[in-house]
Amino acid sequence: MNKDKIVVALGGNALGNSAEEQKELVKQTAVPIVDLIEAGHQVILAHGNGPQVGMINNAFSAGVTPGMPFPECGAMSQGYIGYHLQNAIREELRNRGLEHPVATIVTQVVVDENDPAFNDPSKPIGAFLSKEEADEVAKEKGYTMKEDAGRGYRRVVPSPKPIDVAELDTIKTLVDAGQIVITVGGGGIPVVVKDNRLEGVAAVIDKDFASGVLAEKLDADFLIILTAVEKAAINFGKENEKWLGDISVDEMEDYIKEGHFAKGSMLEKVEACVKFAKSKPGSKALITSLEKAKDGIDGKTGTRISL
Amino acid sequence: MNKDKIVVALGGNALGNSAEEQKELVKQTAVPIVDLIEAGHQVILAHGNGPQVGMINNAFSAGVTPGMPFPECGAMSQGYIGYHLQNAIREELRNRGLEHPVATIVTQVVVDENDPAFNDPSKPIGAFLSKEEADEVAKEKGYTMKEDAGRGYRRVVPSPKPIDVAELDTIKTLVDAGQIVITVGGGGIPVVVKDNRLEGVAAVIDKDFASGVLAEKLDADFLIILTAVEKAAINFGKENEKWLGDISVDEMEDYIKEGHFAKGSMLEKVEACVKFAKSKPGSKALITSLEKAKDGIDGKTGTRISL
Repeated sequence: MNKDKIVVALGGNALGNSAEEQKELVKQTAVPIVDLIEAGHQVILAHGNGPQVGMINNAFSAGVTPGMPFPECGAMSQGYIGYHLQNAIREELRNRGLEHPVATIVTQVVVDENDPAFNDPSKPIGAFLSKEEADEVAKEKGYTMKEDAGRGYRRVVPSPKPIDVAELDTIKTLVDAGQIVITVGGGGIPVVVKDNRLEGVAAVIDKDFASGVLAEKLDADFLIILTAVEKAAINFGKENEKWLGDISVDEMEDYIKEGHFAKGSMLEKVEACVKFAKSKPGSKALITSLEKAKDGIDGKTGTRISL
Repeated sequence: MNKDKIVVALGGNALGNSAEEQKELVKQTAVPIVDLIEAGHQVILAHGNGPQVGMINNAFSAGVTPGMPFPECGAMSQGYIGYHLQNAIREELRNRGLEHPVATIVTQVVVDENDPAFNDPSKPIGAFLSKEEADEVAKEKGYTMKEDAGRGYRRVVPSPKPIDVAELDTIKTLVDAGQIVITVGGGGIPVVVKDNRLEGVAAVIDKDFASGVLAEKLDADFLIILTAVEKAAINFGKENEKWLGDISVDEMEDYIKEGHFAKGSMLEKVEACVKFAKSKPGSKALITSLEKAKDGIDGKTGTRISL
């Protein structure tokens, strides 16, 4: 059996803001994922955790419990999201008479402690505070606080680039056995290497970049980054807007240089796709919506990037 | 390579009450665990989560976030504890020049929805409340609240018996590949089977029973239940107190009937050991302290139960 290996990166916003919401949403999420599995692809599922890790971080900031470091909040979010995702996929598989094992691996992603991102924390996490509260927290805990779009002050953490996946051997073993793996949740728990130790750092790794590194390391055939739109566009929102279909790495790199993609939104997705598509001949990356994932793999829609 | 398979059940109280405490404690925990690995045994690590899931449950009861169902709190505790445990073991292995992959599997344990325990919730979780607060919560959320040793009222949940481990195929694949697996954290996320669906239930599965079921299903050679004492005793605390060494299932069953072991403490450990030792000829179960685990396996100490 030589299946196409596909790393699918699912957005954290698709998972909802409470356990009840998430439980419902993952049912819908599972359908197109299982379509890919049923079509004979070997799926490895990555996912975001923005709203979820924010909620966990907030719960532990209420003062009724000891505080919880951010990497530990990330580890919790992987358990919480993975539990719902693995069950929804398991159920959808069984509804179709399929029985693949599905499991979630608590996954750490290695970053470089000298990554320049550590000098410029930019990713907001946690609750909105007043200027006074923010100053207090900054003094007490050493956090970097930044004003966020007129809505108040929030803690910001760095967003370093992923280098490696600590649990890669485990993931590989399960993928080789034909099992469905949920991994690098929220971009992975960010860790730096200190001699023989992995040390958690308060940071957010972009889940699309982490998914791309995972796809490279797994020697995957396809990286699918799921988002709210069916395709990426140039001149987005303008009169000469153009949706992108099959496109080469060179062309996409030109569009990136021309500033067509918004940072914090489409830019990272496109960059992660380009990086993966360049990693080896035959690698393909796809940006599309959850609903169109299978059509995208089949070449019918989506923005498909290759060498 | 035909290694002895050993399921090790670690107490949740050995993990500490905050992230900082846990990070320190797991370093000490890792040493005797890695002793077993270094001696050539294939270790599968299970653990409790009492204080940790309590803390998570409390954090989400503070009202700053949506409430969190208890099974989801359990899933979070698996991520949180597994993250620290896998790193501590990884580091201790590398300190000795060993490189086994270590990973945590988010694990669900199946219980019977007709288990009589559901009619008699007895396991206290969450914060202590006054009588008035407890009545309010009972009315609002339908929880069963019980007075706890003069310290106030707490929510109680059932403690049904484990039947199966949902992620068994994944665990088996990793164990067969010689990897170190952390699983059934906190006795597993308790689920009941509803047709093709696994549905989380607010319950606490005894982690020693869950570890025993895991050991049976993995066809393990040894079940080690770690506790605060080196051996189990009959007539505990009395003049004729006698520490137990090598002992047969029959003899142990007599001692159980005679009421020698305290419920909620040694009784469940002894029962889990007897059940496992009876499951197939050659199965051995051991009750001892973390520090004595290797000596116990080598037959030098501990309470060792076999047919």
